[in-house]
Amino acid sequence: MTDQKNFSTDIDRRALISAAAASPFIFQPGAALANSGAMAAIRKAVEMQLPASIARIQDWVRNASIAAENSRMEEGAAYMMALARDAGFSQVARIATDGHPGVVGVMDNGADRWVGIYFMYDVKQFDAAEWSSPPLEARIVDRAGFGKAIMGRGATNQKGPEATFLAGLHAMREAGVKPPVNIALICEGEEEIGSPHFRQVALHPSIRPYLEKCLGVVIPAGWQNPNGAVTINLGSKGIIELELIASGEKWGRGPEKDIHSSLKAQVDSPVWRLVEALSTLTKDGGNTPAIEGWFEKVRPLTKRERELIALSARATNEADRKKALGVKRWIDDLSWEKSLERLAAQPTVNIEGLVAGYTGPGGKTVLPARAVAKLDFRLVPDMTVADSLEKLKRHLASKGFPDVEVNMSGGYDPTETAEGSAVIRAQQAVYDRAGVANTLYPRNAGSWPGVVFTGEPLKLPAGQFGLGHGGGAHAPDEYYVIESTNPKVAGLADATMGYVDFLYEMATISI
Amino acid sequence: MTDQKNFSTDIDRRALISAAAASPFIFQPGAALANSGAMAAIRKAVEMQLPASIARIQDWVRNASIAAENSRMEEGAAYMMALARDAGFSQVARIATDGHPGVVGVMDNGADRWVGIYFMYDVKQFDAAEWSSPPLEARIVDRAGFGKAIMGRGATNQKGPEATFLAGLHAMREAGVKPPVNIALICEGEEEIGSPHFRQVALHPSIRPYLEKCLGVVIPAGWQNPNGAVTINLGSKGIIELELIASGEKWGRGPEKDIHSSLKAQVDSPVWRLVEALSTLTKDGGNTPAIEGWFEKVRPLTKRERELIALSARATNEADRKKALGVKRWIDDLSWEKSLERLAAQPTVNIEGLVAGYTGPGGKTVLPARAVAKLDFRLVPDMTVADSLEKLKRHLASKGFPDVEVNMSGGYDPTETAEGSAVIRAQQAVYDRAGVANTLYPRNAGSWPGVVFTGEPLKLPAGQFGLGHGGGAHAPDEYYVIESTNPKVAGLADATMGYVDFLYEMATISI
Repeated sequence: MTDQKNFSTDIDRRALISAAAASPFIFQPGAALANSGAMAAIRKAVEMQLPASIARIQDWVRNASIAAENSRMEEGAAYMMALARDAGFSQVARIATDGHPGVVGVMDNGADRWVGIYFMYDVKQFDAAEWSSPPLEARIVDRAGFGKAIMGRGATNQKGPEATFLAGLHAMREAGVKPPVNIALICEGEEEIGSPHFRQVALHPSIRPYLEKCLGVVIPAGWQNPNGAVTINLGSKGIIELELIASGEKWGRGPEKDIHSSLKAQVDSPVWRLVEALSTLTKDGGNTPAIEGWFEKVRPLTKRERELIALSARATNEADRKKALGVKRWIDDLSWEKSLERLAAQPTVNIEGLVAGYTGPGGKTVLPARAVAKLDFRLVPDMTVADSLEKLKRHLASKGFPDVEVNMSGGYDPTETAEGSAVIRAQQAVYDRAGVANTLYPRNAGSWPGVVFTGEPLKLPAGQFGLGHGGGAHAPDEYYVIESTNPKVAGLADATMGYVDFLYEMATISI
Repeated sequence: MTDQKNFSTDIDRRALISAAAASPFIFQPGAALANSGAMAAIRKAVEMQLPASIARIQDWVRNASIAAENSRMEEGAAYMMALARDAGFSQVARIATDGHPGVVGVMDNGADRWVGIYFMYDVKQFDAAEWSSPPLEARIVDRAGFGKAIMGRGATNQKGPEATFLAGLHAMREAGVKPPVNIALICEGEEEIGSPHFRQVALHPSIRPYLEKCLGVVIPAGWQNPNGAVTINLGSKGIIELELIASGEKWGRGPEKDIHSSLKAQVDSPVWRLVEALSTLTKDGGNTPAIEGWFEKVRPLTKRERELIALSARATNEADRKKALGVKRWIDDLSWEKSLERLAAQPTVNIEGLVAGYTGPGGKTVLPARAVAKLDFRLVPDMTVADSLEKLKRHLASKGFPDVEVNMSGGYDPTETAEGSAVIRAQQAVYDRAGVANTLYPRNAGSWPGVVFTGEPLKLPAGQFGLGHGGGAHAPDEYYVIESTNPKVAGLADATMGYVDFLYEMATISI
C-alpha cells in the first residue's frame, strides 16, 4: 500500500536553512551498544562495507517484483531468500500462500530475547515515462538538501531501509559481534496489493513459534524529515481496497458490450447505475461515509490521543504541509490541529479511480456495458474489515444495488500498539540519544499489515523504525539517501548504526 | 459521430435462409433512367470501371485522416479535392474554417435542377490490435452472408458509399451521358468530432449560392440490412458532446495533483464532487434527464410519427435486435413498439466514459486531483444546442457546482425533413422499383450534421440515401460489400446504378 508514508516528510524546510552550516549528522549510540566494546569495530565494518551495502540496494532495486502485475514474484522470493541467507539467517524458507510466496528466516544468536523484523519484497507499479532516471536502473543522483541518493522503484519503499537493516547484520558479523537479540525475519511479496495472504505467512509453523517469543516487530523505514525529525506511529488505520463494478451482464439490464450511445433512449446504462450506487456511499461532498452502520464501531479519540495530536500539530508546519500537498483548505476549513484529529479519527470512503467506456482524448459515442470504481476505505479502531465489508454489501443491497459487484483485492484491520511497549520505548530511546526529534502520533492515517502481528493470535507490539530519509514512495523519482549532506538526516552508515543500536536497546530495555 | 448507423442492420436473418437459392440482386431502374436511352451504356461503363472503382475505395481508405487525432487533415482535404476534380467537379476549393478545412465543388450540367451531395473525408479513430485485417490496408475479405467486402477504417463510414456515388459520375462520363441534374458537392473533415465548423463550409460564398438552388441534400450511405431493407430517416436527434471536469485546481478544494488516499480524512475529493454533480443530472437510474428545464422545448411525437414507428416496429424483429445489441430488456421493460417510440422521442444524458485517478489493474491508493465524465446529450425537436448547453451550465451552478467545467467538443441541433419532400419521395421511388423494402422512420436516434442544411438559413431537405451494405462503423473490422452474394443486397455495381437512378429521379420527380 502507499500506506507506509510519513506525512511529516518535506516539512520544516525553513529550519534547515539556519542549520546549513552545521556539521554532518553523526550517530550517537545508546549505553548498551557503547558499553558493548563492539561499537568501534561495528562502525568500522559499516564504513568498510558501504560500497557493498550501496550495491546491495541497487541490485535489489534492479530486481523488481510487482505483485499488482504478477511480475517476477518467484524471482523476488528467491532473491529475498538469498538476501536473508547472506545476512546470516538460517532456516530460510519459501512459504507458499494462496497468493504470492512469503519468505521467513531465523537468527538464533543464543540471546535471551527475540525481535521480529518484517520485510516486503514487492514494489509498486511504475510508469517509466514519468521518471527522470530509469526506475529500474537505481542510479545514484544528487537530491538538493539531502545529498547522494539511489533513485529507483522500491528505493525507499521499502528496499533501501530493509537493506540498511541487513547491512547492520553484515557489519556485526564482519566485526565478529553476535547480535544481542535473536531475530525472526518474516517477509511478504503482497504488501503493495494489501497483503491478502500475509496471515498465512505469519502463522506458518516455520515462523510462528519464533514470532510468539518476540518482544515486538518492526519494519525498517527511513522517515526522517528534512529537519531530521521522525514520527512514531502508535497504530495505523485499517484498509479495504476493492472495486465496485456495475455491468449489464450482472444487472440483467443495459448492454452486454458497449453499444452506440444513441440507444440510451431505449437501453439502461450500467454507468449511471454505478454513479447512483456511489452517490449513496457518502454525503457532505464525499467526506462523510453514509453506509448504514458505518460509525457503529468507531471508537472516539482518547484524551491522550488528542494530546499527542496537539503536540504533533505544534511540532509541524501547516503551511509547508499544504504547499507540499498542493492543498489550500482542509475539509470543512478546519484548523491544522482539528484537521489532524480528523485525519486520525475519521473513517473514509475514497475513490482511487473511475473507469468506464471511452477514456481517451475527445469523445466516443458509446453506451458502456460496464463501469468500475476503485475504492479504498480507511478503518479506525474498532472497525474491522469483515464487519465493514458486510455492511457495505448490505447497504448496496438495501439501497437497491444488489447486482453491483464488490471485488475486494486486499485489506486489513486497524493496528494499535501500546505507548508503553518495548518497541515504542526503544525507538524513543534510540532517536533521543541520536538527537532526532521524535513525536508520538496516535494513528497513522495510512495503513500497513501490522494487525497480523498486533491482532489475534500473536498480539505483538509492532511499528516502523529507522533513521535516514527517502521520498517518492508510489510516485515517480522514488529515492533513498545514502550519503547525507544534511546535518540532521542520517546517511546510510549512520542509519545502519541506528539499526544496530536498536537491537542493543531491545536487548536491554526494561520489560 | 457514430451516429450514421442503421439500427435495422443485422435483423431478419431468418428471412435470408429461405431466399438463399434466389438469383443475385439486380438493380431495377426507374422510368426516367430507363427511358433516357443511356441506361445500358451507363451499366456497361459501371461494370467496365468496377476494378477502378474498387481501387478508388481502397486507396482512399489507405489515406486516412482522423480529425480526433489531428492526423493528416491537410492531406485528407487535398485527397478529397483530387477525387472531386477527377469525378468532374469544377470550382473545387479548399474552404478554411476555424478547424480543419472543408472542400466544395460544383458540377453544372446545364440541367434545370440542383442536388446537393454531402461528403465527410475524416474517419473515426481505430485500435489496429482489435482488427482481423489491418485497418489501413483495405484488404478484400469474404463476409459470410454478404460476399466480398473491403475491410478498413472508413470502408462504410463513409468512403465506400461516397466513392460509389463518384463511380456513378465516372460511369456517366464514360458513357457520354451528362448527369440529369447539377450537383453541389460539400465535404467536411470534422464529421467524426461533431462537425464543429461545418456551418462555415456550408455558408461559404463559394458553395452557398449553389446549395440554395438545391432540391435537397443527401449523404451516400450503404444501409441495406441482410434482408435488403432500408430505413429512410425523416430526421435525426441533435447532439452535444462534452466533458464535465471536476478538479482541485478549479474548485479551490482538494489537491492540485494526485495525493495519498489516506489524506481523504483531511482533504476534499474532486472525484466525489464529480459523482455528486453527475447524480443531479438524471433520475430513474440515469434514464430521465433531471436538468432544470430540460423538457421545456421537447415536442411530443405526432400521430403520424407514432404511426410510422408502429409500422417500423412491425417490420423489424425485436428478438433479433436484442440479440444483436446484447440487451435483454428495454428501459422500463417497454414493449418493442413503445421502446422505439422512446428511442425517437426521449432526450438523453449518456455517460460515454469516466476517467479519474488510477484506471489500471488492481488498485492504487491515491486521492485523484481531477475527474472527467465524457457525456453526450441527444436532443429532440425543438431543443437546441445553445439553449441546452446554457441550461446545463445554469443547472450545475444552481446545484452548487459552478466550478465543474463544461468542455464542449462538438454537437448540433436536431434535423428534420418533410415526408413529402423530393429527396424523401425520390428515395422511396428508387428503393421501391429496385425491390428494396423501405420504411419511413420519424427520427434517427443517432445524429448527423444535417441541421446545417435543414436549419436556417438554407432550410433544405436532407437525408441519407444508398443501396449496398457495410458494417462495423466506429468498430473494428469495418467493411463495405463490393461483390454481393446476397440476392437482396446490392453489390458495388448495383449500388452505383442506384445513385445514377436517384439523380434521374431527382431530375424528374414532381415538386
